[in-house]
Amino acid sequence: MRPARRPRQETLALRRQLIGSSCKLFFSNDPVKIVKAKGQYMYDENGRQYLDCINNVAHVGHCHPDIVKAAHEQNQLLNTNSRYLHDNLVDYAERLSKTLPEKLCIFYFLNSGSEANDLALRLARQYTKHEDVIVLDHAYHGHLTSLIDISPYKFRNLEGQKEWVHVAPIPDTYRGLYREDHEDSVTAYANEVKNIIQQAHERGRKIAAFFVESLPSVGGQIIPPAGYFQKVAEHVHKAGGVFIADEIQVGFGRVGKHFWAFQLQGDDFIPDIVTMGKPIGNGHPIACVATTKEIAEAFGATGVEYFNTFGGNPVSCAIGLAVLDVIQKEHLQAHATEVGNFLMNLLKEQKTKHPIIGDVRGSGLFIGVDLIKDEAERTPATAEAEYLVTRLKEEYILLSTDGPGRNVLKFKPPMCFNMEDAKFVVDTLDKLLTDMEKECLNQ
Amino acid sequence: MRPARRPRQETLALRRQLIGSSCKLFFSNDPVKIVKAKGQYMYDENGRQYLDCINNVAHVGHCHPDIVKAAHEQNQLLNTNSRYLHDNLVDYAERLSKTLPEKLCIFYFLNSGSEANDLALRLARQYTKHEDVIVLDHAYHGHLTSLIDISPYKFRNLEGQKEWVHVAPIPDTYRGLYREDHEDSVTAYANEVKNIIQQAHERGRKIAAFFVESLPSVGGQIIPPAGYFQKVAEHVHKAGGVFIADEIQVGFGRVGKHFWAFQLQGDDFIPDIVTMGKPIGNGHPIACVATTKEIAEAFGATGVEYFNTFGGNPVSCAIGLAVLDVIQKEHLQAHATEVGNFLMNLLKEQKTKHPIIGDVRGSGLFIGVDLIKDEAERTPATAEAEYLVTRLKEEYILLSTDGPGRNVLKFKPPMCFNMEDAKFVVDTLDKLLTDMEKECLNQ
Repeated sequence: MRPARRPRQETLALRRQLIGSSCKLFFSNDPVKIVKAKGQYMYDENGRQYLDCINNVAHVGHCHPDIVKAAHEQNQLLNTNSRYLHDNLVDYAERLSKTLPEKLCIFYFLNSGSEANDLALRLARQYTKHEDVIVLDHAYHGHLTSLIDISPYKFRNLEGQKEWVHVAPIPDTYRGLYREDHEDSVTAYANEVKNIIQQAHERGRKIAAFFVESLPSVGGQIIPPAGYFQKVAEHVHKAGGVFIADEIQVGFGRVGKHFWAFQLQGDDFIPDIVTMGKPIGNGHPIACVATTKEIAEAFGATGVEYFNTFGGNPVSCAIGLAVLDVIQKEHLQAHATEVGNFLMNLLKEQKTKHPIIGDVRGSGLFIGVDLIKDEAERTPATAEAEYLVTRLKEEYILLSTDGPGRNVLKFKPPMCFNMEDAKFVVDTLDKLLTDMEKECLNQ
Repeated sequence: MRPARRPRQETLALRRQLIGSSCKLFFSNDPVKIVKAKGQYMYDENGRQYLDCINNVAHVGHCHPDIVKAAHEQNQLLNTNSRYLHDNLVDYAERLSKTLPEKLCIFYFLNSGSEANDLALRLARQYTKHEDVIVLDHAYHGHLTSLIDISPYKFRNLEGQKEWVHVAPIPDTYRGLYREDHEDSVTAYANEVKNIIQQAHERGRKIAAFFVESLPSVGGQIIPPAGYFQKVAEHVHKAGGVFIADEIQVGFGRVGKHFWAFQLQGDDFIPDIVTMGKPIGNGHPIACVATTKEIAEAFGATGVEYFNTFGGNPVSCAIGLAVLDVIQKEHLQAHATEVGNFLMNLLKEQKTKHPIIGDVRGSGLFIGVDLIKDEAERTPATAEAEYLVTRLKEEYILLSTDGPGRNVLKFKPPMCFNMEDAKFVVDTLDKLLTDMEKECLNQ
């Protein structure tokens, strides 16, 4: 039924003609056409294999047969809205609840991380009757009007900061305000939030939520120091606000040690709302908001229905369940720890060899390699990072950058990424960096 | 892998325990558990068959084999984001463009009608540099923060009306401000919008958009008089705003005569932005925004990327293409006209027989039956409508109500709904209405 496969240049021309130019391509000068994928590998129209180091959506591996099967079985049976009773919805909510602290026991299902974050905002505001939101600098929480407002990464380039938005410094102990040499960066960063709350109160404003990615991704693959969330939550709760942990990029076992990235902060930390997206359906559009009974009840008390046409349909839930099954069956969380540690160690070896590598940080298969121009200032090596990513692509490795300086190489591959893949990437990186250093010497 | 099928009461109990109470069930006192569906029929856990008269999402029929096949084939091959080139994306955009006026030639793909309407709002504001939005009374445009603000159906029960939102009277010629006896309801309703613009200007406000469902659904299955959109567009364009046609409920051939419901207004009407959702993927979470080159360019000119993680992925596009194929192959648009006319005629016969039926209106398989208590005042027969819907369910017919008075029986069945189904519903309705009338006489 479909037209015959188009040559890449024709696809590109049609794309430029028909799709909004705001929708960017990777490697826009020479974009890749991908026609097939399996596990951690993608294939272009000529059958060339690329190693995918960045797609955290294809969480348990591209086109995982168990996920494909679950989708197909349910698609043949029933796909309708959640106004009818269906077991998949409750089975799925029950399974998710087992991964979370007991307090987070009420679920809403949606189609995208953006929808989840928007609902989280609505829940927080309805519950607290406050309006204001504190976010971290460089944060990105989604593409919707309400989320661009709370995403410094976006609003800085658009209409600017709304009066109800407050930006706290990112708790980056490598290049942030308080670094690894600070005697108590946890308290120092948390006090920044405390001060923001105080200033907001002085202006008569009231805090609805502290909204944060459990591990800031676009912000530069940041690992907030453990204990920071607890202290922030204390300040935020005192102000009558709630703590929203955005797990859209980093949830579902990616960090290895824990199923949820917020758990890296310690057992004594529990957010009031958790949002999930990207990996949750291995590419199928699903998202979820988990919250407490109290918050859900305050939202329900308005009497206003929340209806999401596709959210929580039997197919989405079947796929969500299958993803949880595969994570468990294939021990992907333990695998993420093992392979992640191996990859981190290899990268740290490279750090001793190549001065451009300023920092290697991460947890499980969420890793950032911070490239710098000089050790003293830690100036982001933006151009070098871009060059590396382009060269890696020529070696059939898909990697990209993050961070305000676009200088942090980010690893967040499908969770089936293995030791061999890790070795291949780092060997290639080593070769490219060595070449770069040679060229510098020759210039 | 899944637990054995739960008894209905257990599913219900778990649902009440785990899912936010804002997510409502149909027939909440005695909800239906649906386990299977095919075409226009749904089946409960005891195998009982229900006729589905309301699910416009299952557009070409529940679990249509061609759609299931398209999803499965693509799921096995590749499901990734639109940062790589892929033929499905451009093929789909090209196919959609052929259904639309030439001017609407740029496409954005998303996961839900709500996401589409939010983007439409962003496009309109970026293009016009204005903020304000005019909507129709009782409108519903989605569940996101930004859309509740423009949905009187929702905001009236929540925080109320924002200063940038203006509500125009719904062009309902049956129970609205200007009725069938008005000499020129088109101009009269359009002048209401003109006046709103004038008043807004006097307050120093500027109109970004007139945002309207091509056929207001939640508003009560309303058919705006032809020519109304043209006149409104003239006023809105003069004010520097754009016209957004929300086709989420009514697009894709449902209205029979045309592929898009806005085309009912006449060939001389072209909106600036069209949003699509619900039926677009037969249940798979897809949505689309179509707009002009000028608007897309203004949006692109900010340099800010629009990235939608799942939007426009190869699976969603394969499904979208398959839906278009089936509509064509099975002549569903012509079928909607034929069956819709047949159903309308049967319902109009009932109107002559049962005084509770005040109005029968519609186009294709989008039909409303307006129930009234008395002909003089046209008082909505709310309780009677609710009773009928409950009784119909006991006869295994799924129907529901719309309109501010919750008194309009709405028909928007899967497009494979046939003559026999129409006859079955109307015969049952006749029987129930006759019984109701008898009971009234006996009281």
